[in-house]
Amino acid sequence: MSGQAKPTENMLWGGRFTGGLDPLMVQYNESIHFDRALFAQDITGSIAFARANAKAGIITQDEFSKLEQGLLAVKKEWEDGTFKIVPSVDEDIHTANERRLGEIIGKDVAGKLHTGRSRNEQVATDMRMWLRDELGKIEKHLQDFLNVTAARAEQEIDVIMPGYTHLQRAQPVRWSHWMLSYGFAFASDLERLREVIKRVNRSALGCGALAGNPFGIDREMMSKELGFDGLLWNSMGAVADRDFVAETLQWGAMLMQHISRWSEDLIIYSTSEFGFVRLADAYSTGSSLMPQKKNPDSLELLRGKAGRAFGHMAGFMMTQKGIPSTYNKDLQESWEPMLDHVKTVSDSIQIANGVLATLSIQPEKMKESLDPFMLATDLADYLVRKGVPFRETHHISGRCVALSEQTGIPMDKLSYEQLKGIDARFEEDISKVFDYEKSVEMRSAKGGTSKACVQEQIQVLKSMIA
Amino acid sequence: MSGQAKPTENMLWGGRFTGGLDPLMVQYNESIHFDRALFAQDITGSIAFARANAKAGIITQDEFSKLEQGLLAVKKEWEDGTFKIVPSVDEDIHTANERRLGEIIGKDVAGKLHTGRSRNEQVATDMRMWLRDELGKIEKHLQDFLNVTAARAEQEIDVIMPGYTHLQRAQPVRWSHWMLSYGFAFASDLERLREVIKRVNRSALGCGALAGNPFGIDREMMSKELGFDGLLWNSMGAVADRDFVAETLQWGAMLMQHISRWSEDLIIYSTSEFGFVRLADAYSTGSSLMPQKKNPDSLELLRGKAGRAFGHMAGFMMTQKGIPSTYNKDLQESWEPMLDHVKTVSDSIQIANGVLATLSIQPEKMKESLDPFMLATDLADYLVRKGVPFRETHHISGRCVALSEQTGIPMDKLSYEQLKGIDARFEEDISKVFDYEKSVEMRSAKGGTSKACVQEQIQVLKSMIA
Amino acid sequence: MSGQAKPTENMLWGGRFTGGLDPLMVQYNESIHFDRALFAQDITGSIAFARANAKAGIITQDEFSKLEQGLLAVKKEWEDGTFKIVPSVDEDIHTANERRLGEIIGKDVAGKLHTGRSRNEQVATDMRMWLRDELGKIEKHLQDFLNVTAARAEQEIDVIMPGYTHLQRAQPVRWSHWMLSYGFAFASDLERLREVIKRVNRSALGCGALAGNPFGIDREMMSKELGFDGLLWNSMGAVADRDFVAETLQWGAMLMQHISRWSEDLIIYSTSEFGFVRLADAYSTGSSLMPQKKNPDSLELLRGKAGRAFGHMAGFMMTQKGIPSTYNKDLQESWEPMLDHVKTVSDSIQIANGVLATLSIQPEKMKESLDPFMLATDLADYLVRKGVPFRETHHISGRCVALSEQTGIPMDKLSYEQLKGIDARFEEDISKVFDYEKSVEMRSAKGGTSKACVQEQIQVLKSMIA
Amino acid sequence: MSGQAKPTENMLWGGRFTGGLDPLMVQYNESIHFDRALFAQDITGSIAFARANAKAGIITQDEFSKLEQGLLAVKKEWEDGTFKIVPSVDEDIHTANERRLGEIIGKDVAGKLHTGRSRNEQVATDMRMWLRDELGKIEKHLQDFLNVTAARAEQEIDVIMPGYTHLQRAQPVRWSHWMLSYGFAFASDLERLREVIKRVNRSALGCGALAGNPFGIDREMMSKELGFDGLLWNSMGAVADRDFVAETLQWGAMLMQHISRWSEDLIIYSTSEFGFVRLADAYSTGSSLMPQKKNPDSLELLRGKAGRAFGHMAGFMMTQKGIPSTYNKDLQESWEPMLDHVKTVSDSIQIANGVLATLSIQPEKMKESLDPFMLATDLADYLVRKGVPFRETHHISGRCVALSEQTGIPMDKLSYEQLKGIDARFEEDISKVFDYEKSVEMRSAKGGTSKACVQEQIQVLKSMIA
Repeated sequence: MSGQAKPTENMLWGGRFTGGLDPLMVQYNESIHFDRALFAQDITGSIAFARANAKAGIITQDEFSKLEQGLLAVKKEWEDGTFKIVPSVDEDIHTANERRLGEIIGKDVAGKLHTGRSRNEQVATDMRMWLRDELGKIEKHLQDFLNVTAARAEQEIDVIMPGYTHLQRAQPVRWSHWMLSYGFAFASDLERLREVIKRVNRSALGCGALAGNPFGIDREMMSKELGFDGLLWNSMGAVADRDFVAETLQWGAMLMQHISRWSEDLIIYSTSEFGFVRLADAYSTGSSLMPQKKNPDSLELLRGKAGRAFGHMAGFMMTQKGIPSTYNKDLQESWEPMLDHVKTVSDSIQIANGVLATLSIQPEKMKESLDPFMLATDLADYLVRKGVPFRETHHISGRCVALSEQTGIPMDKLSYEQLKGIDARFEEDISKVFDYEKSVEMRSAKGGTSKACVQEQIQVLKSMIA
Repeated sequence: MSGQAKPTENMLWGGRFTGGLDPLMVQYNESIHFDRALFAQDITGSIAFARANAKAGIITQDEFSKLEQGLLAVKKEWEDGTFKIVPSVDEDIHTANERRLGEIIGKDVAGKLHTGRSRNEQVATDMRMWLRDELGKIEKHLQDFLNVTAARAEQEIDVIMPGYTHLQRAQPVRWSHWMLSYGFAFASDLERLREVIKRVNRSALGCGALAGNPFGIDREMMSKELGFDGLLWNSMGAVADRDFVAETLQWGAMLMQHISRWSEDLIIYSTSEFGFVRLADAYSTGSSLMPQKKNPDSLELLRGKAGRAFGHMAGFMMTQKGIPSTYNKDLQESWEPMLDHVKTVSDSIQIANGVLATLSIQPEKMKESLDPFMLATDLADYLVRKGVPFRETHHISGRCVALSEQTGIPMDKLSYEQLKGIDARFEEDISKVFDYEKSVEMRSAKGGTSKACVQEQIQVLKSMIA
Repeated sequence: MSGQAKPTENMLWGGRFTGGLDPLMVQYNESIHFDRALFAQDITGSIAFARANAKAGIITQDEFSKLEQGLLAVKKEWEDGTFKIVPSVDEDIHTANERRLGEIIGKDVAGKLHTGRSRNEQVATDMRMWLRDELGKIEKHLQDFLNVTAARAEQEIDVIMPGYTHLQRAQPVRWSHWMLSYGFAFASDLERLREVIKRVNRSALGCGALAGNPFGIDREMMSKELGFDGLLWNSMGAVADRDFVAETLQWGAMLMQHISRWSEDLIIYSTSEFGFVRLADAYSTGSSLMPQKKNPDSLELLRGKAGRAFGHMAGFMMTQKGIPSTYNKDLQESWEPMLDHVKTVSDSIQIANGVLATLSIQPEKMKESLDPFMLATDLADYLVRKGVPFRETHHISGRCVALSEQTGIPMDKLSYEQLKGIDARFEEDISKVFDYEKSVEMRSAKGGTSKACVQEQIQVLKSMIA
Repeated sequence: MSGQAKPTENMLWGGRFTGGLDPLMVQYNESIHFDRALFAQDITGSIAFARANAKAGIITQDEFSKLEQGLLAVKKEWEDGTFKIVPSVDEDIHTANERRLGEIIGKDVAGKLHTGRSRNEQVATDMRMWLRDELGKIEKHLQDFLNVTAARAEQEIDVIMPGYTHLQRAQPVRWSHWMLSYGFAFASDLERLREVIKRVNRSALGCGALAGNPFGIDREMMSKELGFDGLLWNSMGAVADRDFVAETLQWGAMLMQHISRWSEDLIIYSTSEFGFVRLADAYSTGSSLMPQKKNPDSLELLRGKAGRAFGHMAGFMMTQKGIPSTYNKDLQESWEPMLDHVKTVSDSIQIANGVLATLSIQPEKMKESLDPFMLATDLADYLVRKGVPFRETHHISGRCVALSEQTGIPMDKLSYEQLKGIDARFEEDISKVFDYEKSVEMRSAKGGTSKACVQEQIQVLKSMIA
């Protein structure tokens, strides 16, 4: 290569490094400790590539057979745990596999495996296969979680709780309505996930280092063999496109925000002050100093890991910022965040599912927290039905609230005369307004908290899961 | 409401604020200076809501007519620039419009407009309509940009330039191939945009404050009138769901990364040292101190604004983190970033389009930068075709590179004897390898840089734009 | 300059833009709408520069006098609101001021103002002066907020509340202790702010475009005149260093996290379920639909704006990523985020101060929420003092908790016999343990919640504010 | 504890998890795989705590001796690699150490170790000690890097290169001036690092779970023994304050931005087109497909890892957003990012140092890239010295540039008559202006690129390193 810079001559200014090799640089550069996760994809991809080269006549059918058998033997070593990584030699999974293949079938034939192939396209292909498979598993976990949500919403549809806005008591709602409010957010995550997978699952194989393959390789044949949904259409773009990673990280960061907010609600609902839910012991822990404590550690970890997932995304987007087109080594930094992200997201959905499936609710505590002021809107609505303009009813109802606060008499215990004193249009049937169940059932337009509406929502949700 | 805390009594500890009203808080809370952008959506939404209330019998047909006419009159004032915002009274666009409506048609009827409607659902509805429309315009700008890319790629298909990896010269490619590499990234942005719009364009109207609408309003009728694609299915979720904002910001942040990287490439290509492209004067500026300078300011602004777009996304995701479900005032912070984001993205696509449409290229400079070492792979491929294992050809070609470097003779000027001395399998036709055009044409597998492949890519791209 | 690319010739591929000027590009490039905030700094800096040029003999003393008087006249126009910006001509504050100066004193002398000065150094100088002054104001606001915290902590030191970990009741603490826990976080912000200001306040003036000033200008004289703390030492770095912005944004993002968490605690404490605090009406708002609501909007806005402040930082760091050294136009993107950040942070500290100063507390509600289980650690500590190993006492205390839960008898009402039944080492004085005040006073090591400790903390805090 | 929720009963809705224990939750919760890094700090901290408890009379001197010896024995096991972690039992380093201590010295005495201590304060103490030590090492690496920068700047002070703004050739500068421009940025990092360390190195020990220590422990004695610079003053804050992590991550993210930009410059300078520098082979790699390639992988990894470092920060700030005060399990997420961040930053500084120390420069290529247009400012300055207003000289110089472009005659070869034709004030000595060395030496105001100025900068930098 280009005239070697001899470090020793230049070292007049001193510095840490004096030899021809910097062991820290070797380690800084190596990816084998994390990209070994790709061993199977790497081998499957290599077989498809060799098969296509055989079809194109670049290697013989016999050479292909040797390559295939050799590669399957290497794969078996990985599966059996007998593959031995050679330190400082096997810098990444691709060189490791090829080195071992050469030992098994001889270098002459092994040396033909890579014909017309670049590590750039190979890495991209391996990563996409791996990620597609992992996202498929995550899709399944998400469906499970949604199924538990729907089942629980059906089962506990009769439980009424205070609904909050601004964390202040607002109007009574069904507990199932609350669960479904997150259910639909997660269902949107599912919809988005399916769109992401579609873009992840495209083939870069046969694109060379950047300019394309010079041996007329059949990219579509390889794409089908490897289960891709189609080709990446421009070789310069294909070899270095990591948008499939960025998009996955964006997706996961948003899903984890939902999990975080869902956890936050449950943490608040599990305080002594609220007391609406109680976590199963499997998802709680005690305190080293305070024997009475039972802490919602699972929910706090879920909430905390939303930050980690966001960090993966923010970090990788930063890495991509401003690098020139085609492959640059910066892109190696797409691997570790993705690996940790996928694990984080996958585990978190499963933990959330476990928490929800084992959570016990305290319907009595929910009922105790319902407070007559939460029916102030119903009071206003009552007058609306008598033809009073809404803005006026809002003020009348506000005066009832004030009277209750001043007198200390709960609003639903104010006498008919007291109410009539505020506005003459109140009639005796006003007493029927003070009924939480009725209030809930009144919200019967689509999407509302009435029983029929909630049941309809469950059906809609189920259709989105399938 | 609840017994007013009288600040004066508590002010033993002193502090900035002593009266009953904090003017800074009024300003901190107001949104009219940015949400006035929504005036048209707010009025259109209100008309649809009133019409549905009339249909439900909550207001009369006559009341509806008055509301409609009044609202259209208010809208006209906005359009004519005659609407007068009343400071400290019109805190947001919704109160401003309703206040003015009352002045025009009288408070009795105007006071019925809001019947059963909450500001929560109203804000969500207005924002979604506005954003849907803006994203539609952005879709159009993106199509324009892609059309210019495709047209230019067709026109200049014969221009060959050095392709780089790691910013080091790698292999010759077509200039059109480079343009298309970004074209496909932007086409993916277009695909994603269409998915995002689909989710933005869902209706929250008729969801109340959180629990639903108690007057049996026909949400589907309103949804159709307002051009939505469907309903949000859970009222608690619907009133506070800002994922449509977060998703838009994620989308825009990724698109801007593509614009940034595209700009970065062009900035490098427009240096004196590369010299491949020259920006039109309309997109360059001079220097206040150095008279010879012509700086690619447009590209640098595009690159810089990718940061701003990312900041919108990161900031809003941070805002959403950890807030409880349903509406919280934190969500007001979704508005300004979205507004600035939409403007940033929209402007940037148009500027990029202008830069590309007026850019002049310097094919001679590109040709001068092609260097025989960029054919080293072709040299290896030549031997592959003679049956030499690829790994071996790679080393042989490396020795030719080394010989050229040592002797100072350009690789394509090495004599046949010199090459033969390195490997006996070189034959006289080796000289034909040293041809950049031929090298480019050899990359003829799908996605490659040969003319036919690039033409196919242009057709694929066009089908994605439509 | 270099041969103008004539757009029309190149427009075979069509595209948005066909003339010699793109009005959108003009607007995209302009900064006058935001950098006009710098008018005073720009003029002060120009006067100092001219004075130094006079001293160096580059301009005459008479020319300096004319420049100075002219600049002061321009400044007065800004102050009086009579300065007229000429659209499309005054692209930034620097060109605007110089254009106007020329009109007032004539172009011959005005044309000497810029001698040896670059817009790069000028922008950097103006920004640093502006930011230094704004951060000084913020320092003052932060001191005010800390003074209210300290005063309130002194005043209300006798109020005891439940302390939480994991949002679960843990041990009794003083309300003042809670306030001070944030007080010390804000005091660290103050410490950091002073370090940041020190680095902001360095002078770039006299650095030229990148290579330095060729007329022997006295940089130290200018630095002193403008109130800088010292010089930036390398001209290439100085003209484009925006780390002072990044550092300010990092600082503000962290402060806003403290404000967000402080707000979060107070939002939870102001729920009906907790009920510990009540916001003044000036910092709350009602609901458009629910007349009984009183929402902590101020706290939610504070919490939400922490996201915005983070977005400024994340966005600007993204902008800086990967740009080459010295000035690039990307850096224009440092201005608007900084401007909005400074306003956001400054307003937020003042709002937080207003909230705290006017907040009323409900000591009875706090007391009601104290629960005997919160003394479980004190029970264990009792036995520790009798020589029982802590790990054993922890289990014994746990058994007392369990007995209380099983029997439904509050732990502090368990009979002496019942306790003795659990562990024989309990003696009659165990009853004295069940005293929240005593529990609090026992935590008397430095930093603890005993009265003396809290008073010591107040003194330490005060010494940090000064 | 509170009545156990029996998952089986609740499992009507099905779901993943049916037993009393979720193995995934156990793994999700465990921290031993990363916090084992703290073993030494954990033990040192425990010894200090026990010594202070002995002094306070809570344990006897004999018990202390046993604890100390036992703890040292445990530490030795870690150091010897013989410590055996018990899966599912040793969930974190603290429980692991205490479990083993009990096995060695018996549970009776071991059970007293934790007296009055909470895991919250223990974790905080361990982390701060660990981080303080690591940051001390990083400080040393940074000093080394700065020393190489200063030494190289001294050695190569005579090398002149083109200085760029907007990546366009601007004015000639010294190569050392470029190196120092980054040197001062890194020196600011060093200054900030020292401020960060000061805040990291504060003691939380003796703060209990949140309310303080009830046994009168001497916090200052422990602080001194453990090498802390002082106390954290509020126990509620101290146990959960992770700002020291956030601040470290902010610091590292900014340093890595400097490394990224430095790398970006060197990547551009090492292209064939620029050709100013050549990396040592130890910091480059070849291509799997293209035998002629030599890629600057080290610099690209440095640039890429700046994203990772930013991600750590952004992620952890997201984690902290909105969690209530005192300890929440979310904070466990502070550990792994910090661990990876410290390694990333530490390695990166050392790699950057290696790259710089072994880089060879190509002064001839730098010289070839100097172009007469870069002296256009000097031409203008020449006229300024003749009394022509700067604005006018700028235009005259611009006309010289234009004449050179039109005629194709390099600006420094334009005849005296040609120049005189443009402006009569040019005299024969104008030819002396066309001298790059002279141009450089003219920039002699402080901070400029003249030799004396650069030497002064080197001295200033050295004083900042010490």
